[in-house]
Amino acid sequence: MTQFLPGAIVITDNRKFLRVVHTGETDAVNLPNGSISLQEIAEIGLGAIFEVNGKKYYVLECDTYDLVMKGIKRDTQIIYPKDAGYILLRLDIFPGKNVGEAGTGSGGMTLIMARAVGSSGCVYTYEKNENLADRIRKNLRPKEDFENVRLYTRAVEEGIFETGLDAFFLDVRDPSRALGAVYAALKPGGHLGVLVPTANQMSKLLWAIRDYPFLITETAEIFLRTYKTNPSRFRPDDRMVGHTGYLLFARVLQESVRLKTEPDPE
Amino acid sequence: MTQFLPGAIVITDNRKFLRVVHTGETDAVNLPNGSISLQEIAEIGLGAIFEVNGKKYYVLECDTYDLVMKGIKRDTQIIYPKDAGYILLRLDIFPGKNVGEAGTGSGGMTLIMARAVGSSGCVYTYEKNENLADRIRKNLRPKEDFENVRLYTRAVEEGIFETGLDAFFLDVRDPSRALGAVYAALKPGGHLGVLVPTANQMSKLLWAIRDYPFLITETAEIFLRTYKTNPSRFRPDDRMVGHTGYLLFARVLQESVRLKTEPDPE
Amino acid sequence: MTQFLPGAIVITDNRKFLRVVHTGETDAVNLPNGSISLQEIAEIGLGAIFEVNGKKYYVLECDTYDLVMKGIKRDTQIIYPKDAGYILLRLDIFPGKNVGEAGTGSGGMTLIMARAVGSSGCVYTYEKNENLADRIRKNLRPKEDFENVRLYTRAVEEGIFETGLDAFFLDVRDPSRALGAVYAALKPGGHLGVLVPTANQMSKLLWAIRDYPFLITETAEIFLRTYKTNPSRFRPDDRMVGHTGYLLFARVLQESVRLKTEPDPE
Amino acid sequence: MTQFLPGAIVITDNRKFLRVVHTGETDAVNLPNGSISLQEIAEIGLGAIFEVNGKKYYVLECDTYDLVMKGIKRDTQIIYPKDAGYILLRLDIFPGKNVGEAGTGSGGMTLIMARAVGSSGCVYTYEKNENLADRIRKNLRPKEDFENVRLYTRAVEEGIFETGLDAFFLDVRDPSRALGAVYAALKPGGHLGVLVPTANQMSKLLWAIRDYPFLITETAEIFLRTYKTNPSRFRPDDRMVGHTGYLLFARVLQESVRLKTEPDPE
Repeated sequence: MTQFLPGAIVITDNRKFLRVVHTGETDAVNLPNGSISLQEIAEIGLGAIFEVNGKKYYVLECDTYDLVMKGIKRDTQIIYPKDAGYILLRLDIFPGKNVGEAGTGSGGMTLIMARAVGSSGCVYTYEKNENLADRIRKNLRPKEDFENVRLYTRAVEEGIFETGLDAFFLDVRDPSRALGAVYAALKPGGHLGVLVPTANQMSKLLWAIRDYPFLITETAEIFLRTYKTNPSRFRPDDRMVGHTGYLLFARVLQESVRLKTEPDPE
Repeated sequence: MTQFLPGAIVITDNRKFLRVVHTGETDAVNLPNGSISLQEIAEIGLGAIFEVNGKKYYVLECDTYDLVMKGIKRDTQIIYPKDAGYILLRLDIFPGKNVGEAGTGSGGMTLIMARAVGSSGCVYTYEKNENLADRIRKNLRPKEDFENVRLYTRAVEEGIFETGLDAFFLDVRDPSRALGAVYAALKPGGHLGVLVPTANQMSKLLWAIRDYPFLITETAEIFLRTYKTNPSRFRPDDRMVGHTGYLLFARVLQESVRLKTEPDPE
Repeated sequence: MTQFLPGAIVITDNRKFLRVVHTGETDAVNLPNGSISLQEIAEIGLGAIFEVNGKKYYVLECDTYDLVMKGIKRDTQIIYPKDAGYILLRLDIFPGKNVGEAGTGSGGMTLIMARAVGSSGCVYTYEKNENLADRIRKNLRPKEDFENVRLYTRAVEEGIFETGLDAFFLDVRDPSRALGAVYAALKPGGHLGVLVPTANQMSKLLWAIRDYPFLITETAEIFLRTYKTNPSRFRPDDRMVGHTGYLLFARVLQESVRLKTEPDPE
Repeated sequence: MTQFLPGAIVITDNRKFLRVVHTGETDAVNLPNGSISLQEIAEIGLGAIFEVNGKKYYVLECDTYDLVMKGIKRDTQIIYPKDAGYILLRLDIFPGKNVGEAGTGSGGMTLIMARAVGSSGCVYTYEKNENLADRIRKNLRPKEDFENVRLYTRAVEEGIFETGLDAFFLDVRDPSRALGAVYAALKPGGHLGVLVPTANQMSKLLWAIRDYPFLITETAEIFLRTYKTNPSRFRPDDRMVGHTGYLLFARVLQESVRLKTEPDPE
């Protein structure tokens, strides 16, 4: 069963991901105890098990999770999937949506949002650190998948070019400085999401956001606790991630609203 | 600023959601201390604040989260957004994907997956309880949004009509009985996700899945811990959800694979 | 099997505690669907099951946990057992130790520490709110158990009368203001424990403690997640306590230390 | 300020414990970048800071926590302090109590309970693995502290020599086999505590305990989440312990109880 190999595959060793392979770039895949040619992999196809010198490996199509966790080069802390999935849902990031982001970091969340909005939507992402731009561009390759991403090398607080965006995700050191620009870029009722690592940053953000017409819908953190898969000894793993960040979600209110029969509410 | 009102809006009172309003069905919205006409709401528009007898309300477009948490009628336990977001990401449910589900329950996860795959994808959902069918159909209205959902009133273990699906999500009492049907419906490398409430069910599932060519990629649970939004007293809420379910994720391997130069690994 | 009834018993209804009964004060115990005389309870004895109008009840000796959770009147937030047990261990509060506390609150932690140090130790507890004093004295009755507690109606920052204490537990609004007094009251190497509800308070405390010769040994929080007891459906309870407080533990260093052969480290 | 050095001291390097030193056994303490004599340590005293080749160290009296976490040799998984503190409180282990334990393991929990019951109480501990006996005896040295511990090299299910115990703590592979012996050893109303690592073991225990007159008071697990101590960047540590064990607490009911005016409840 020879199958066409997609742009990227992942070779995994039981539960540990080993390699994401961009299939156009290489002829052979080096593994801990040997190597295998892409030709051989293409012949056995996706979902196959193969052995090299007595050790089993699995061939899988590289999905978005694999790409973010193993397939991109990181200069910065990535957004963990446990947070990313909830952010997608909370910011209502679905096909056709136009979404902003700052900072881009290594592009992991950019990539996830680009997949979610699809070819009918767009992700506008702002990264002020010029040294990251090349890294991001490499991570967002292959181009055909991420034509819906526009990257600006620019600090978000200097202004956002777009208006009427459906949602904006902020992952910058001081999100309180970006609130004005982000408010201006979002449509009424649009969604804001922020991730900050420390309680002090969240406290500062909660003060700052009071000056803008946002309705806070949730402040939260998410834990992922993994389990061992032995059916006769079901129990959590000994260690887990203790923290990634605090999340804030809010929705955009109109700057000034008058209801004919009512006094101004503010 | 008169705006077109979308199919559903949500009226919220600070952080507590009050009402999802399907705008075609009603002329006025009843609130705890009075009412407001849809005409007035349309005039003030999305993102507006209004007051009725001294109490402030907010008008927001009903998003997927609102719809699942407040806008659908429930006869069964819903999938919580903390789990749903992670499931989307782990099953790689993005635009254009063809996804199966069983059981449908009240249709909350169906709705989320239908949004995620968009008009170029499809959700095939199996629910054996005939009494739920009407409820589900009402929850998935308005039709124009969910033309990409096909509902079968049928037990999943009796067989799945589709083949080559990208992903399948199982939320049934005994998922181990459905593994054969689900395996047959998924493409090689396809994604399986399962949610079960008890440790006993997960243990049973972990035994049963050993008889099928699935590669388990993760067993996990997710916690969402919300925080109070007072910037000078930042702290978690006093109470939180202690449990929804245990999650299992796996990928489909080929039924039999032979590598020319290697012995059969199994 | 007639048994002597101790100072307090607890009547419980399956897993829900109903009543702590101080046996000297009453002749009969009122229950949701009837009553039973203390004479009858004494005759059936500790560990007995009895029925009143078809409902089962259990008679148990009131232990420290029962007393703190159900047997004391509360005007303030109590220290939860999940935190109290860890505090005992972290502050090395064992028989014979002399321990300070501020504020006393409703006396729950006072009572736990008094039990732990026993008759050869002592708990010195400071509460500035005079209105609480009567409540605390009632909660610490019967006197014979808590002769080792000395209660001062006094703000801890006004000074602690004791010196050379083994440990001190701080549960006051602004613990940073008490650090000087507490440092003076503790012996070298002595243990400090602090509980604060908010991240802002902990941040402020972490700043303030830098001015004193304390070695921070841990900053932490503790979660207790309870489970259902159905053996064929083992799973966590639906809801849990999301937060009680943040804990800090530290040990007292000498104010100034000179090592002959080494320069002053500070 | 020369101080008498207690039986054991701990040398620590900021928040990382380095060494527990049994002061009678050695003349000098080896450290990562040099050494210091016990004579010098005794001269500077408890709570002192000293430097060796530019690196700061702290001298502290070894407390129970230090002893369990760093001062004992382990052949088996220890009971973590987060669990041990709660177990003490839940089993009402305070001065004067007579407490049983099986298995002893490396003796960490034995040591904690021995401290808690003091010289007026006693800990009877059963360990079937004869190879552990020497290790345990070494860990429970110095003898003067733990004269209140009696160690039996015997499987608990073969029978417990004591009766009328206040509490029993079970940490064995199959606690369900020990329930009969433990029930016989406890007084009416006495406390049972069990720790098991897996959900399967807890499920099995919950089945087995139904055959004995125990009242289950709680099934739970405890998380300890530590935080960084930087006051301007307050946040949890990146990693935490994901699991130690599931806990069950129960109290002993009478084997048969008759209330004159009521039918037998069982």
